[in-house]
Amino acid sequence: MNLFQIENPKFLKTLDTEELESLSQDIREFLIESCAITGGHIGANLGVVELSIAMHKHFNSPEDKFIFDVGHQAYIHKILTGRISQFDTLRQYKGLCGFPKTRESEHDVWEAGHSSTSLSAAMGIAKARDIKSEDYHVVPVIGDGALTGGMALEALNHIGSDKTDMTIILNDNEMSIAPNVGALHNMLGRIRTNSNYNRFKHDIEDAIQKMPQVGSRLRDVADRVKDSLKYLVVEGIFFEELGIKYIGPVDGHDFEDLERAIESAKDYKGPVIVHVITKKGKGYHPAEDDKLGTWHGLGPYKIETGEVLGKKQTVSWSEFMSNSVLEKAHEDERIVAITPAMPVGSKLTRFQRELPERFFDVGIAEQHAVTMSAGLASNGMRPYLAIYSTFLQRGYDQLLHDVDRQNLNVFIGIDRSGLVGADGETHQGVFDISFITPLPNMTLMMPRDEFEAAKMVDLAFEHEGPVALRYPRGNVPGVDMNQPRAPFDIGEWETVKEGSDVQIISFGPTVALALEAAGALSRREVSAGVVNARFIKPLDEKYLHELGASDAPVVVVEESMLEGGLGSMIATFFSDHQYTNKVKRIGIDGEYIEHGDVNRLLEDIGITADNIQQEALKLVGKKHEKSPY
Amino acid sequence: MNLFQIENPKFLKTLDTEELESLSQDIREFLIESCAITGGHIGANLGVVELSIAMHKHFNSPEDKFIFDVGHQAYIHKILTGRISQFDTLRQYKGLCGFPKTRESEHDVWEAGHSSTSLSAAMGIAKARDIKSEDYHVVPVIGDGALTGGMALEALNHIGSDKTDMTIILNDNEMSIAPNVGALHNMLGRIRTNSNYNRFKHDIEDAIQKMPQVGSRLRDVADRVKDSLKYLVVEGIFFEELGIKYIGPVDGHDFEDLERAIESAKDYKGPVIVHVITKKGKGYHPAEDDKLGTWHGLGPYKIETGEVLGKKQTVSWSEFMSNSVLEKAHEDERIVAITPAMPVGSKLTRFQRELPERFFDVGIAEQHAVTMSAGLASNGMRPYLAIYSTFLQRGYDQLLHDVDRQNLNVFIGIDRSGLVGADGETHQGVFDISFITPLPNMTLMMPRDEFEAAKMVDLAFEHEGPVALRYPRGNVPGVDMNQPRAPFDIGEWETVKEGSDVQIISFGPTVALALEAAGALSRREVSAGVVNARFIKPLDEKYLHELGASDAPVVVVEESMLEGGLGSMIATFFSDHQYTNKVKRIGIDGEYIEHGDVNRLLEDIGITADNIQQEALKLVGKKHEKSPY
Repeated sequence: MNLFQIENPKFLKTLDTEELESLSQDIREFLIESCAITGGHIGANLGVVELSIAMHKHFNSPEDKFIFDVGHQAYIHKILTGRISQFDTLRQYKGLCGFPKTRESEHDVWEAGHSSTSLSAAMGIAKARDIKSEDYHVVPVIGDGALTGGMALEALNHIGSDKTDMTIILNDNEMSIAPNVGALHNMLGRIRTNSNYNRFKHDIEDAIQKMPQVGSRLRDVADRVKDSLKYLVVEGIFFEELGIKYIGPVDGHDFEDLERAIESAKDYKGPVIVHVITKKGKGYHPAEDDKLGTWHGLGPYKIETGEVLGKKQTVSWSEFMSNSVLEKAHEDERIVAITPAMPVGSKLTRFQRELPERFFDVGIAEQHAVTMSAGLASNGMRPYLAIYSTFLQRGYDQLLHDVDRQNLNVFIGIDRSGLVGADGETHQGVFDISFITPLPNMTLMMPRDEFEAAKMVDLAFEHEGPVALRYPRGNVPGVDMNQPRAPFDIGEWETVKEGSDVQIISFGPTVALALEAAGALSRREVSAGVVNARFIKPLDEKYLHELGASDAPVVVVEESMLEGGLGSMIATFFSDHQYTNKVKRIGIDGEYIEHGDVNRLLEDIGITADNIQQEALKLVGKKHEKSPY
Repeated sequence: MNLFQIENPKFLKTLDTEELESLSQDIREFLIESCAITGGHIGANLGVVELSIAMHKHFNSPEDKFIFDVGHQAYIHKILTGRISQFDTLRQYKGLCGFPKTRESEHDVWEAGHSSTSLSAAMGIAKARDIKSEDYHVVPVIGDGALTGGMALEALNHIGSDKTDMTIILNDNEMSIAPNVGALHNMLGRIRTNSNYNRFKHDIEDAIQKMPQVGSRLRDVADRVKDSLKYLVVEGIFFEELGIKYIGPVDGHDFEDLERAIESAKDYKGPVIVHVITKKGKGYHPAEDDKLGTWHGLGPYKIETGEVLGKKQTVSWSEFMSNSVLEKAHEDERIVAITPAMPVGSKLTRFQRELPERFFDVGIAEQHAVTMSAGLASNGMRPYLAIYSTFLQRGYDQLLHDVDRQNLNVFIGIDRSGLVGADGETHQGVFDISFITPLPNMTLMMPRDEFEAAKMVDLAFEHEGPVALRYPRGNVPGVDMNQPRAPFDIGEWETVKEGSDVQIISFGPTVALALEAAGALSRREVSAGVVNARFIKPLDEKYLHELGASDAPVVVVEESMLEGGLGSMIATFFSDHQYTNKVKRIGIDGEYIEHGDVNRLLEDIGITADNIQQEALKLVGKKHEKSPY
C-alpha cells in the first residue's frame, strides 16, 4: 500500500494477517531507506513494526493512550498516525522529532526521551481516567532495559498493589542500548528459554489427576502441589508476585500471537503485562547482527552494507576520555570504571575488555551507578563514572548526598555536555553546571581540547574529593599533543589571547569561537582578550580580582543555561567585591532547546563568533553608560 | 551491666542468650529514658535492639562493614561501639549525630540520611573488597520501606546478577515512616502470614520420596515437581528470582532465631538476604501501638504516657498547607494529592480520610511520585505533590524532564524548606532554589506567613504550568487572617517596610529578621526598606529596575545556598542591566550545615537581625568605596 496515504490508524481494523504482514514489509523498507539518509534509531524501530501495528489495530488511539518509554521506538506509531511525509526532516532543525511530541499529534499523549518514565506516567494517566470515570485503555510500552531503571520498579510496586487497570507492553529485545545486564534480564532470559515449561505444567496437572489414591496425607500434598503450579511455571512469577498479571512470552513478529495476547490483555481488569519478544533491527541484517548496540541510534548509513557514513578522522571525545582513563588504570589499580548502560556510547568497551574485573556496566540505573561509585570510593578505589550530562540529572541526589556530602574521590566524566543536536530537548546537556556548582565539595572542569583533557584526567585522579569533567558530543579538535603548553593546577584559568579593551571568557569548544571573535575584533582595532575558564568550580579568583581591578568589560560565552551559569557566577563575584565591570552573558536563556544541527541551534542562541563580536563591540562602545531604564 | 563501660562490641562474643536478653533490656530502658529528653528516632531503634546486638556478636565490625540504610536506626550500634556517653547531646548542636558519621567512629563506614542508598553503597564497598582481594563481610541493613526506593531495586538487580558476596539484612517492621504501601509490602506480608508453608515443603519432599514407581513419565514429572519446590515455597521467591538467596522469615526479637540465621548467612557465598521481622517501638507501649508513624522521629516526650512535650499552639506549616489544599480540593474535583511516604509528616492524613480516591501515598518512591504527578496533570488533573525539599532532590530529573519540560500543571509543596535542625546535613532543605530556578517553566515562591500562603495556593491552582511553593519546618507565625492586605499576582514582591538608605530583601521566615534589623537600623537613623521576595522565580523585574535606578545598596538574606540563590540572581540582574547597586548576600556559603538548633545554626551562618544590621551599616557607610584588592 501507499504508506503516504495513511492519515490515521483506523484502516488497520479490517486488515487480515497477510495484509498486516505486507504492511510491515512496506514500513520496514521505508524505515531502512529513510533512516539511511536522515539517521535515527533504526534498530529499535525495526524491532517493533508488528507490535506497533498490532497495538494500533486492537486499541483505539488517541482514546486509548499509548505511552512510549524513552520514545525513540515510536517511528511506526508516527507513520500510522499520518506523519510519514515528515520523515525526511526526522531529527532535523524544525523537523519531525525523534521522540513522541504532543504538539505533533493528538496520538502523542506523553513525551519522553529519558528512560523508565512510562509506568509512572501511565499510573497518573490511568488514575486521572478513573477519577473522571472515563473508560479507555492506558498502554505503556517499556523495553526490558528501561524496566531496570529504579523509577520503573517503583511504579510497578505501586501499580501492582493498587490494581490499576492498564496494559503494560514489555518490549523485550534483550538490548537496552548495550546488551542488558542484571538479574531482571537473566530472569527474562529464563522465561525465553524455558517457554516449554508451559507444556510441563499441563503434564503435571494430568499426572496429578491420574495419581493413585495414597492416603489423605499425600492427597493433601498433591492438592498443594496443584495450587502451587503457578509457581512451577517460572514465567512471569516475578510480576505475579508484584500483583501484575503476566501474559507471555509472545513472539513479537507473529501477528496471530501478538493479536491474541493483546486481546486477552484488553479483557483483563487490573494491571497486566504482555511480555513481547522482539528482535532489534529485525529485517535489516546490519542492524540485526549488531551485538554491541552500535545500531541504537546513529547517523546516515549505506543501505547495502550498513556502513555508517561521514565519520570524521579524529577520535571522539568519549573515546579520548576512556582511553586516557584506561591508560591511568593500567598504572593505578585503584581506578575502576562504571557506566549505566553506555559502554558503547561512552566508548568504554576497550576498558571492559582489558580490565574486566574493574569495569561495571550496571544497566540503565543511574542512581545506583552514582552511589555504587561512592561506595567504591569509600573503600579506597578511585572510580571513574562515565555518564551523559542529561542522565546525570537522574543521579542528582546521589551526587549530592552520597558523593559530594561525603567528599569522596569519585571522578565523573560528563559525556555529551552542551548541545547534543538531533536527540533534542530531552537530551541537551545544559543543566549540569547549574546543579553541580552549588555542591560544596565538587570540582567542575571542561577542557577546550584533548591536550587540556589529558592534563585534567591526571589532576582528577590526584585530587582528594569529587571531580567532574564535562566533555562534549563529537570529536576532539585534533591538536598536537607534543606542543609544549603551560602546566596548570585546579582552579587556574588560561589566558589564550591577551587583550585590553574587552575580555571574552568561555570554556570548552566555544573557546574557539571566542578566539575567532577576538581575531575579528582586532581587525576592527579592538583589543580583545580570550580567557579559557577551564575550571567552572572553583573560579579563578586571582584572575577575576585582576579583571575586576581593570574594570574591563567582559563577555561570557557558555553553551549551557544562563541561570546558575558561569556568567552569573562572574557577575556575582564582581558584585560581591564591588567591581563594576560590565558583563554580557551569552548562553541559553530560560528555554528548552529543541532538536537540530548544533551549529544551527548555536546560531539561534547567539553563540557565534559574529554575535560575540557584536556584543563585545556594544560593551566597548557603551563603556560607563547607564541603563536607559 | 553498666552500659557506660562499653568501649567496643567485643564483649558480646561470649554472652549467652540470657545475657543478651538482659543487655537488650538495659539498652531499651536507656533509649526510652534518653530519647525522652533529647528526642530522636526512638521507634526505629527499639525495633532493632536484638538485631543490632546479634549483628555485632556474629560479625566483626569494623573489619566487617555495616551499612545502615537511612541510618536513623543506628543508636544501638552507636552504644555498642562506645558512644553512649554522648547520647545526652543526640542531634544537638555539635553533639552526637542522629545518623552514622564516619568521623565519629571507625565503625561508621557509610553515612546516610536519605533512604535506599545502602545496597548500592554495599555493592561498591564489596567490589572494592574483591578487587583488593580482601576478606570480610559487607552487611547492608535496609528496611522494608526503603526497599521500594528505586535505587535499592536497581542495586538488587545488579547484586543478584553479579553474585557479589554480601549479607543483606532486611529489617521488616511493616512501617517505613508511614505504614508501608506497595506490592513488595504485600509480598512481604504474605511471607509473614504464610511462614508455615515451610513445613509443607518438607512434607512434600517426603511424599515424593515415598511415591510409588508409576512409569517413567510420571517419574519425570515428579522430579520436575521436586526441582520446582523452591517455587512452591512462596517465601523469598521474589528475591530468588533476582538471584539472591533468601533466609527467613526470622523473629527479630528472638536471639536464637536471629543468631542461627546470621550464622547461616555468613556461611553462604554470594548475595543473601536475611528477612528479619521486627516491631517498631518494641518494648515501649506508646511507640509500639503507634499506627500512624507519629513515633518515627520526634522531640522530647513524657515517659509514662508517651505524650510529646512542648508542642506549640499554632498549626504547623505542613498542616496549614494540607488543609488549604484540601479546602480547594473540595471545590475542584481536578485536585489530587500525592505524597511519597509522608502522609503524617506532610499532614495529609485528613486529605486521605476525606478524599481517599484522590489521595496517593506511593511509598518511598520520590521519582515515581513526581512523574506520576506529571501523568495526572497530562490527563487533566491538578496534582498537589507534598515532598520535603531534601527528598525532592531524588526526583530532580523527573521534575525537569517530565514536569517542567512538558510544562504541566503540577503544584509542588516543598515541605521542610530551609534549615531543619536536628536531622542535620542530609536533611537541610537548602538546595532546591539552586536546582529549580534554572528550569525554564517553573514558578517558585515562598510565603512569609500563612496569609500569603493561602493566597499563593489560590494562585498555584489557577496558574498554567508547574509551580513550587516552599514552606519551612515548624509552625506558622499565627497572623490574623482577616486583616486586609494588598492582593498580588505571580512575580510581585511586597514592600513590607519603606526605606531609602538601604534595602533588605528576603523571603519566607527570614523576612521577620529583616524587619527586626530594619527597626534597629531606624533607631540608628538609617532608613532601611524591607522587601519580601515572595517569588524567587520569576523575579519582580519591575521592582528591581526601580531599585537599580535608585542605586541603593542591597542586603539579600536567604536561608539557602548562596550558589544559584536569590542574591546571586539579583546581582546578576543588576549586572545585566548595568546597575551599580552594592549587594551583600547573606546565606549558606559553600558548606554543608550540620545538625543542631536552627537558631544556633542561623547564628553561625550570619542570618540574624544583628548581622543583617551590621552588613547594612557597612554598605551604607562604605557607599561608592572601591574594593581594596
